[in-house]
Amino acid sequence: MATIREEALHMHRMKKGKLETKAKVAVRNARDLSLAYSPGVAEPCKEIFEDPQTVYEYTVKGNMVGVVSDGTAVLGLGNIGPEAAMPVMEGKAVLFKSFAGVDAFPICLNTSDVDKIVETVKLLEPTFGGINLEDIAAPRCFEIEERLKKEMNIPVFHDDQHGTAIVTAAGLLNALKITGKSIQEIKVVVNGAGAAGIAIIKLLKSMGCKDFILCDSKGAIFEGRGYGMNDLKHELALVTNREKKEGSLADVIAGTDVFVGVSVAGALTKEMIQSMNPDPIIFAMANPVPEIMPDDAKEAGASVIGTGRSDFPNQVNNVLAFPGIFRGALDVYATHINEEMKVAAVKAIAELVAESELNADYVIPGPFDPRVAPAVARSVAQAAMETGVARRKVAPEEVEKRTKELTMIDED
Amino acid sequence: MATIREEALHMHRMKKGKLETKAKVAVRNARDLSLAYSPGVAEPCKEIFEDPQTVYEYTVKGNMVGVVSDGTAVLGLGNIGPEAAMPVMEGKAVLFKSFAGVDAFPICLNTSDVDKIVETVKLLEPTFGGINLEDIAAPRCFEIEERLKKEMNIPVFHDDQHGTAIVTAAGLLNALKITGKSIQEIKVVVNGAGAAGIAIIKLLKSMGCKDFILCDSKGAIFEGRGYGMNDLKHELALVTNREKKEGSLADVIAGTDVFVGVSVAGALTKEMIQSMNPDPIIFAMANPVPEIMPDDAKEAGASVIGTGRSDFPNQVNNVLAFPGIFRGALDVYATHINEEMKVAAVKAIAELVAESELNADYVIPGPFDPRVAPAVARSVAQAAMETGVARRKVAPEEVEKRTKELTMIDED
Repeated sequence: MATIREEALHMHRMKKGKLETKAKVAVRNARDLSLAYSPGVAEPCKEIFEDPQTVYEYTVKGNMVGVVSDGTAVLGLGNIGPEAAMPVMEGKAVLFKSFAGVDAFPICLNTSDVDKIVETVKLLEPTFGGINLEDIAAPRCFEIEERLKKEMNIPVFHDDQHGTAIVTAAGLLNALKITGKSIQEIKVVVNGAGAAGIAIIKLLKSMGCKDFILCDSKGAIFEGRGYGMNDLKHELALVTNREKKEGSLADVIAGTDVFVGVSVAGALTKEMIQSMNPDPIIFAMANPVPEIMPDDAKEAGASVIGTGRSDFPNQVNNVLAFPGIFRGALDVYATHINEEMKVAAVKAIAELVAESELNADYVIPGPFDPRVAPAVARSVAQAAMETGVARRKVAPEEVEKRTKELTMIDED
Repeated sequence: MATIREEALHMHRMKKGKLETKAKVAVRNARDLSLAYSPGVAEPCKEIFEDPQTVYEYTVKGNMVGVVSDGTAVLGLGNIGPEAAMPVMEGKAVLFKSFAGVDAFPICLNTSDVDKIVETVKLLEPTFGGINLEDIAAPRCFEIEERLKKEMNIPVFHDDQHGTAIVTAAGLLNALKITGKSIQEIKVVVNGAGAAGIAIIKLLKSMGCKDFILCDSKGAIFEGRGYGMNDLKHELALVTNREKKEGSLADVIAGTDVFVGVSVAGALTKEMIQSMNPDPIIFAMANPVPEIMPDDAKEAGASVIGTGRSDFPNQVNNVLAFPGIFRGALDVYATHINEEMKVAAVKAIAELVAESELNADYVIPGPFDPRVAPAVARSVAQAAMETGVARRKVAPEEVEKRTKELTMIDED
């Protein structure tokens, strides 16, 4: 039997990539040509020139996301460069289309210079309705996203940060229902101060969570720590770990309620879990091998366990978030994806797990649950309209209905 | 009955643009996901990292052309900007796909600065197997193309220049058969010193044509002319009009054999044609109204007449050239589209008009002749291999066969 490696190589080679561009109109004769190209095409051009927003009506822009990477932090492979990143960006584009009918196109840039990336992506704005940043190494990814969000009028979303954060937060909301704790009262330790870890803290904060300790490979980050810091860690040190605890993860995890790992295999031990508060919640999302294996975590007393893996319960899979989020944002011609839209996505994902079905092995919907993208799109579109970043109004139920029609996945 | 305007607007609005991205692989379940995305996708990534040229095997790059514009010279509409240019670039992408199975994607850039355009397109190289520049105003288009050709390792082709030049040259070759003149001996007057006019002179020169006069709106361009010049006109003044004739088009057209108009309606009169050598050949390509109407040209004694219009014989339509040229270049992973490849395209197009069918009303194949793109692709691929710009070898007949399979147009 072929291994995954052999089969994946074979598939990519046979298909020569996973994406194609396809005409939505036939051009088979002079009449077709006169409508799709000269002279007819001049008509939508003139309309857009008169009223720039009609570019959303007459062109692909309104349904087109650029999947932008510089190839510096690809999967677990690291800095393999923009050419080698292409299969991932194409794959991401395939997921956008398959899960939510979003057209998406890989843009792999031959530079890792922040200024050049920002400049280039800004210049591409006429073509795209949204930008999904992908696999760009921290801390450059933060500055790039921040600047693009300020300087562009279309949504910019770094999925490695926010996608993971949104799905983790959804799982946490449901896990808290099981353990009977409130988000305002829990103590959370986040291990891993990369893109995802920092985004998780920011998102949970905006959802009311107050008590965090962030650890990196050097241990707890605290205000005034003199080693291994950067601007973002400094910033986070001011709003996390207010007791300024020092020491390793093992030292600071005692007495916390939630462990969120976006770090490395083996970072969490049974002993550490045993030092946590009763009914600890563990999200061990290191890939492909989690910070602790679910069986070990359970033995150590964990109440709810999530990982990044498909072969264990509660998989934290970004595909639950980004397709529906962009679907909702595009459908209302959103200018941004703001915090309220992210929180709306969190709640939409969490609420799909009915109270009657909720249990320790089911706090997150499966990645192929076809209800997810439509529900997320609906909530995100609504949040966009309520917070003033939508350029047009659409009934949220219409967004949901249309997303259902566009989804090409089967039921789980 | 709906006008073209109404119908074109309706079609663009209903379809929301003319292009979509489409997955070539289904992602319906966990197994699909593990091949198209994590973890399987890491395998082609690793292969490309080890051997960069395999990006042509495993990704869309090898079949993907970027249709790049800044929207400064769109159709006859002028500088309408990058958003309003989107329908044209999408239309071009549709033609690439429909005529030769080339995937193409619109890239409309929010700048008209030469340095920024050059920098941006260079940074996009990992995604694309070729770049088609489109509707960029002269003289910036010349510098942009020149610099990109030097600095990129994929073909860069400004279709407004070379597409028109190639099809005109093909028509001219056949017209010369009718009039019994040789390309080495004819005198050619080109009216219009924009992108297409200059490209026509360069291409005809490389095909053996020796005697040109180039006119702009101020009349004949000659060495030492002190007004209305730019770098390119200076350069061309050194190799055209060696008798340094001065004066208007009417003054210099007398005694020439061929008129090529890429200028404005009404620029050519019957009297001018009557002053030309016997059996004059007229390509009057101003759009939508030619320099002289074909009936008037015929009355004045023109032997062969071509225009840009579909409602007269001998339409000079770029769609005869660019799909097959890129098809051939992509199929051999060409690094450039060089002069030999352009001449190969000229000859391939001309030769499709059989001697037995050749007549004054049929010197150029129709735009929907399904033999064209396959024949052009074959010849261009062969020329690329013969001139050392191909990165792989493919039998030319294989290129032709495959192009036939990929063509989605019907017979004329």
